Parts: sequence; C-alpha cells; structure tokens
Amino acid sequence: MSFSDRNGALCAEEVPLEEIARRFGTPCYVYSRAAIESAYREFVAALDGRDALVCYSVKANSNLAVLALLARLGAGFDIVSGGELARVMAAGGEASKTLFSGVGKTAAEIELALKSGIGCLNVESPAELERIAGIAARLGRRAPIALRVNPEIDARTHPYISTGLRESKFGVPHAAAKGLYLAAARMPELELVGIGCHIGSLLVEPGPFVAAATRMAELVDNLAAAGVRLRHIDVGGGIGIRYKADDPAAPIGAFVRDTLAALGNRPERLIVDPGRSIVGNAGVLLTRVEYVKPGAARNFLVVDAAMNDLIRPPLYGAWHEVRPVRQSDAPSAVYDVVGPVCESADFLAKDRALAAKAGDLLAILSAGAYGMVMSSNYNSRPRAAEVLVHGRHADLVRRRESLAELFAGEQIPG
Amino acid sequence: MSFSDRNGALCAEEVPLEEIARRFGTPCYVYSRAAIESAYREFVAALDGRDALVCYSVKANSNLAVLALLARLGAGFDIVSGGELARVMAAGGEASKTLFSGVGKTAAEIELALKSGIGCLNVESPAELERIAGIAARLGRRAPIALRVNPEIDARTHPYISTGLRESKFGVPHAAAKGLYLAAARMPELELVGIGCHIGSLLVEPGPFVAAATRMAELVDNLAAAGVRLRHIDVGGGIGIRYKADDPAAPIGAFVRDTLAALGNRPERLIVDPGRSIVGNAGVLLTRVEYVKPGAARNFLVVDAAMNDLIRPPLYGAWHEVRPVRQSDAPSAVYDVVGPVCESADFLAKDRALAAKAGDLLAILSAGAYGMVMSSNYNSRPRAAEVLVHGRHADLVRRRESLAELFAGEQIPG
Repeated sequence: MSFSDRNGALCAEEVPLEEIARRFGTPCYVYSRAAIESAYREFVAALDGRDALVCYSVKANSNLAVLALLARLGAGFDIVSGGELARVMAAGGEASKTLFSGVGKTAAEIELALKSGIGCLNVESPAELERIAGIAARLGRRAPIALRVNPEIDARTHPYISTGLRESKFGVPHAAAKGLYLAAARMPELELVGIGCHIGSLLVEPGPFVAAATRMAELVDNLAAAGVRLRHIDVGGGIGIRYKADDPAAPIGAFVRDTLAALGNRPERLIVDPGRSIVGNAGVLLTRVEYVKPGAARNFLVVDAAMNDLIRPPLYGAWHEVRPVRQSDAPSAVYDVVGPVCESADFLAKDRALAAKAGDLLAILSAGAYGMVMSSNYNSRPRAAEVLVHGRHADLVRRRESLAELFAGEQIPG
Repeated sequence: MSFSDRNGALCAEEVPLEEIARRFGTPCYVYSRAAIESAYREFVAALDGRDALVCYSVKANSNLAVLALLARLGAGFDIVSGGELARVMAAGGEASKTLFSGVGKTAAEIELALKSGIGCLNVESPAELERIAGIAARLGRRAPIALRVNPEIDARTHPYISTGLRESKFGVPHAAAKGLYLAAARMPELELVGIGCHIGSLLVEPGPFVAAATRMAELVDNLAAAGVRLRHIDVGGGIGIRYKADDPAAPIGAFVRDTLAALGNRPERLIVDPGRSIVGNAGVLLTRVEYVKPGAARNFLVVDAAMNDLIRPPLYGAWHEVRPVRQSDAPSAVYDVVGPVCESADFLAKDRALAAKAGDLLAILSAGAYGMVMSSNYNSRPRAAEVLVHGRHADLVRRRESLAELFAGEQIPG
C-alpha cells in the first residue's frame, strides 16, 4: 500500500512520514510514486489490445516530477494553458502526445502550441476555430484540431465541477457540432483529427461517462457519412476516487471496460484524460498540530497547514480523511481541524473524532489532486514543500518557498 | 474620483486603463494611490483628537508599494504571519506599531516577532500564552501581549467571514478572558498592553461593531478593578465597502464616530484594524475579452482573468461590478463573465448585461482587497501584474510571473 501503518507510524511506501517532517518540514505534500504508477497502469491494462492513449490531466497535479514519471511510462498529456505546456516540455513529455483543452486559449498560447508540435487543439467555440485557423495560416502550418462537444449529459456531481450541461461554458453544443465540423473541413489550415468531451469530475458511476462516449461515437459515424473522418475519440476524464474509507475504490477498470464495451470494435484511437484518479489517492498533506484549543461550542486543532495549502474543503465542501501519523496518548475529542489563516473559511476538516496534542503530525489524505496546484500565498504564507517517495527514498521535488520569495517580484515606486 | 470615465474611457486617476493594458498586459491589478490615501485619511480625520492608531490589515492587500504608502502616512499594521511581518519590514513599516494576530502562530514566528520589536502579540488561546511566555523567557525579553477576546456578537455577515461567534476558532471566550488576564499578569515574561476583538468582515452597520467595543471597554474596567491596567483597546476591523452601485458608501466615519461616542473619554489608546475599507474600492482587475461565446442556455464572455486571479466569486459568492473600459459598438446581451480555467467554478460574474466583443477591455471593480493576495497558479497560470497609479503616473509594483517561474522550485529526481 502507498500509505499505511508500519510499526505504529504512518508511512509513505517505506518512509515514515515523521522522517519526512523532520527532513523537509511541514506543511508538506507527500506523493507515492508506486501509487501513481499503479493507477496509471490500471488504465493501460484495462485498455490493453486497444489503440489507445492515456493523456494525464496536468491540472490535477503538475509537479515536474509527477509529469516526468508519467512521461517515462509513456503517458500523453491533457493541458489547459501555455504554462502547462511549458511544464510538459520541461518534464520530458512529448508535444505530439499532448492535447490542449480549455475555453480561453490566447493567441500566444495557440502559437506556442503549434510551434511545439502539439498533438491536438481541443476547440471549444466557433470563435476559437477562426482564431486557430488564422494563426495556422500566418505560421504556414496545419493545426490539428478536435471539437470539444458538449454531450448535454448530467454527470450528477457538484455544480462547480459538472461541465457537460447545456448551461456550461465548455464545449460546442451537440446540435451545432456537425455544422462546425463541416465548416472546419473547408478550412485548409485545419486538420480534423478527433472529437472530445468531458462531462464533469468526481464521477462515481460509469453510466453518464459511457453515455457521453456513445453520443460521441454516433456523431463520428454521422460525420463519416458526411465525408469527415476522425482519427480519435477523446472520452475525457473525471473518474472519482475514494475520499472516505467506505467510498467504493477508484473504479478505473469498470469505467474503461464499460466504455470499450459500448464503443465496440471501432477503428478510432480511444483517448482518456484522467487526472484525479491517477494522483488523488497518491498524495497526502502532512501537517503538524500547533495548538489544541478546546471550546464551549467546538474544539479546534490548529495545524500549520491552511486553506492556502488546500482550498478544497471551503471551496467545494470537500471531505478529506484526517489521520494521525502515530497514535497519540492525548485524549480523544471531536475537533475541527483548522489552519492559521485569519478567516472562518480556513478549515481542513470539521467534526472529526481525533486524539492529538500540540506537536503531533496529521496526514490529510487523498490530497494528491487539486491540492498543491490550487495553493496560494494567502496571508503571506510560503507555499508548502512537495516530496516524492519511491520505496525507501524520499526526494524533495519542490522546495518550500522562502519569505523573501513572497515579494521578490514587487517594488516600491521611488 | 479614483476610477472614472474621461473622454469615454475608464481611467485610474488620470491614466487610461487602455494605456495600462498596453504597457503592462492583462490580466492586471490596478490600484489608485489617491483612493488608498483618501480612505486612510478618513480614519485619521474621524479619530482626530483621540489617542489612536490605524493598523492596516495587511492580509487584504500586502503589496510592498501599498504597505510603503501607508507606512509613510504613519499607519501601523495588523499582521497574521511571519511573511506579513517580513513584508512590513521590507516596506519600511515600524514593528513597534505592528500587531500580530492569528490563531496559529508558530514558535519561529513568535521568536521573529519578539526579536523584531513587535508592538503587540494578539493572543488567541491559553496554549499560545504559554508558548509566548516560554519563548520570551528563553530570549530574555518581555513579550507585549493583548488577548483577542471573543465578544460573542453576531456580525450578521457571511458565515465564512463571521469570526466573533462562540463557534469560531478565533479569540478567547468572553467568560474566560478575565481569568486568563489574571494568569498572564503573574507571568513576568509577559507585558499586558491591551485587549482586542474582531467580529467579522463586510460589516454594513456600526451596531454590532460598537457593541463589541463596548463589551471590551467593560472588560477593561473590570480588569482595572482587579489591578490589571491595559493601555489599548483594539476594536478590530471588518468595515464593509460598496460592491454594488446602490450599496451605501463605505461608512468609515460613522463606524468611528459611533465607536468614539460609545467609548467616551476613556484613557486607553484606540486601535482600529481596517483592511478592505482602505484598499477594496481602490483597485480593479483589468482583463481582456478573449472570446464571445453565445449559447442556447447562457452567453459567455471568456476573458483572460480567472478564478486563480480573483477567487471571491466562487469562494464567497461575491458580487463584483464589471465595467467595459470603453463603450463597445458590439450588441448588448446578458453574459456570464468567465475565465479560461477548466472548471465551472471559474466565473467572475454571472448574468450581466454587457456590450463587448473579443479584444475589449473590462474592469472588475472593487478588487483591491482579497484579490491578488488570494491568487494562485491554478491551471499553471502565471499570477497577474500589479500597477499603482498616482495622478498621471503608473508604476509596475509587481511584475507578471513568467512561465519558467512557475516551476523554478521544482526538480525531477535522477
């Protein structure tokens, strides 16, 4: 197991988290290489025998070490910005196996992507199609594109992460897709390579995911009948993970198998874009209790991690398991686990039965996705260190920020 | 006015925002020096004749140029971290006029504050009191302290920013304050200098604020009768600002006058800690429309600023006015103003009647507080530039981050 007890102390693979806190300080994100590899390989195994590509969704966790690990395993990448493209390149990823998604690509980002030899631009609007064609013409290149089509399927998830509804900012309406493909086919600067969709995040059942894939396949057939042949179907990502111990395990295999069954023996390459399901359970946020603060109405464990480190609880109402790194001799009580940031939104967990005292270490579980990537310097707090564990080795893969770095880019006018 | 139309174009003081976009790019935070000075001076004027100190709450906007400006005007500072202390020092602020608040001060932060000659540590729990006394003893210093007392008054504001209730993580319970002061008075390492409170943010009426100040004053009298004499009463901050055009104007004068009236001719120094009411309306987030995306269910203006630049709308449900920098010849429609970040939480404003086309500039108003300080690199987006305007001059006070800076602290294990 990637995070488990050994001799009474929680470890990342074979490294005690206590040792990591000693060497690298807290708060600190700790990732398990074995857990990342294992989740990635589950996709590859489920897709075995199929022409397919797993494009890791960089926005979930974009640390160069994580990207380099996945690139070495053969992954492609799903990116949403020029910054993510720069990261993929710096980590040794291949631009030709990289898809560029997102509703707001700037001209500079499109130009950078085309010059880098991007595998595909996932187009989200007619205006973007025009812009890409114009830039490709100016550069004397053909731009490989797919349309991100909105399947108009309810992913039945949190409104902030449901993206496939008609009211969403994402994608091209299903009804408009064929017309737009036919228009794109008449633009010589564009090379139509595929179709994509993404219905939302934290999906717990394959049903909506498979329904979206099926709608995409029908559209591909419809387009083929009209003379537009596409080479790939990108079914997106959004597969949920286990946040609570009694949640079902990450259902990667089931999602892939049901999708393959629905698509049958189609000739197009199948692309999946998992993010959270690869890294989410592969990381913890390691934090130390600064103060125990009992109260009349509530009890608080004030820890050294805060909402600037992990914003998912206040932003999405997300639930993360909190586990003591070592069983404490302190009495147990029901606590809110809160950080030092000066606002009531700064909580990591509420109403948890925990035994802990000042100085104890806690691990906030399932923090490998949408943790560090969303962190800020709010309250002028340096961002946490990141550590990647491999067996008995722990490597610092992002150093903790210094106080001076907080304002290195600022200047006082004379 | 700090932001107003001149010859049909929105300006910061006398500088057209179009010129700022040309020189510094978008997205970009733009602050008006005159607006900051004017709000600060409103506090000073309302407090005229009273022994008082305005301690600017650094967490609202911690740019060094903003802090330096306020330090030159004589402001003290209210800080919540070692990082904010480093900022105050770098900006020329005085440690002796600085208060250190916050529930999670680490030992390193307390030591740094004492060595810097901090004016006061606002203590939030018995455990913190013990820690401070221990560190002061080790350093051979006396630590100047106040207790942050929880007045248990409902500020009638958003639950995430209401901080003075019994269920809050902040402060010492009112009923326990006297006993803790008497205990602190017996610790020779501590110098009891004051008392503080803070009931929440975005207060629109002085009533709860004044009620909290009155409770503090009663406690001070009660303590004096027991032999503990305090030198200052810190009534906190949290005064709201005008986000919507029909909100009442920032009621700084009314808050201060009502507080002074309630406190009468007391001998203690009065301290106020305003943040938002000084900088909130003194800043805008300047952004450019990348795409207009009409839809069946909703229309979208996709702009180049996003939730990573300004997280208040998804995090607090906050409303910011969106104003075109120049009247557009585009037809008007009802739009959601959204960014390029790949999730549905990425919106800046919803359901706004606007006339705009790709390339147009928009100003997101009232973004001077809790804007840049909460920004992140989510989706690997470099953080925005910050510009301070003074009359006809615009100075870059924080340069835009580069792509390479995004991962400068990261390394791939060999």
